[in-house]
Amino acid sequence: MNLKSIIKEYADFPKKGILFRDISPLLRDINTFRYVIDRFYEEYKDKSIDIVVGIESRGFIFAAALALKLNKGMVMVRKQGKLPGDTSSKSYDIEYGNATMEIQRASIKKNDKVLIVDDLIATGGTAKAAAELIEALGGEVAGFAFVVELSELRGIDMLKRYKVFSLVRY
Amino acid sequence: MNLKSIIKEYADFPKKGILFRDISPLLRDINTFRYVIDRFYEEYKDKSIDIVVGIESRGFIFAAALALKLNKGMVMVRKQGKLPGDTSSKSYDIEYGNATMEIQRASIKKNDKVLIVDDLIATGGTAKAAAELIEALGGEVAGFAFVVELSELRGIDMLKRYKVFSLVRY
Repeated sequence: MNLKSIIKEYADFPKKGILFRDISPLLRDINTFRYVIDRFYEEYKDKSIDIVVGIESRGFIFAAALALKLNKGMVMVRKQGKLPGDTSSKSYDIEYGNATMEIQRASIKKNDKVLIVDDLIATGGTAKAAAELIEALGGEVAGFAFVVELSELRGIDMLKRYKVFSLVRY
Repeated sequence: MNLKSIIKEYADFPKKGILFRDISPLLRDINTFRYVIDRFYEEYKDKSIDIVVGIESRGFIFAAALALKLNKGMVMVRKQGKLPGDTSSKSYDIEYGNATMEIQRASIKKNDKVLIVDDLIATGGTAKAAAELIEALGGEVAGFAFVVELSELRGIDMLKRYKVFSLVRY
């Protein structure tokens, strides 16, 4: 399936100089949406996974659908201040600025094997922060799944220690 | 299944005076997560639905999982400035302040029957704004699905014209 023909491009969004890849049309069509989840599932169904982590906010979409298909629970990694209770946080650089991500400390148990899901990998800062949050709680990162990889930004280089699966490369 | 025993309460989050209902533990356990999606599915499987709308950002989780199960596409209603291209926007009051939600105009086609999903209904402002965005594009709201309803805040009163299904009432 040619996902590139479905993902739309928007120049100068959300800021001048950024070429935004929009996965909205891919979600709107159940055939492409299901195809993405099926490909992720095929990639990870025989791996040992205890929990699926979704990165706010489009990562939630693919993580939730994949978690149900893998028959595993889901955990949210969210932007600062969104999660109640006892949380860990990690600051990092993103494509357009910097940010802080958080996770609830009770959500990852020691030796949990964790699959991290997001819609897109750009510089890799968000993904690496998520991995560090999980590892600091004693979890093991079993792999990453991304719909879109902006390979020019070399985010993959930040995740050299991990298994990374991405469906569409630009 | 007793979801109330799984949903955690946090006083004074995110602001003083707010009792936050946290659905994170419900997601983390695949049995409760699947139960919620199965209940939503049973409620709407025989209704005429063309598309499932998820409200940013926890609504994305339940909307995505339900869309796949209903075999329908998914559309995002997002906070202002997050969606590229030609969008419609609607401002409204929320539980702690006010906000603007947006939808891509091309995402709803005339006469589309739309199921709107969010994790929680409080004052109902967000849900009503989503319905108005959809109707302004010619779509029909086939119903709402919420995990949690804060009935004291009477959000349901804002949605009197619609079918509303919620799983847990406080």
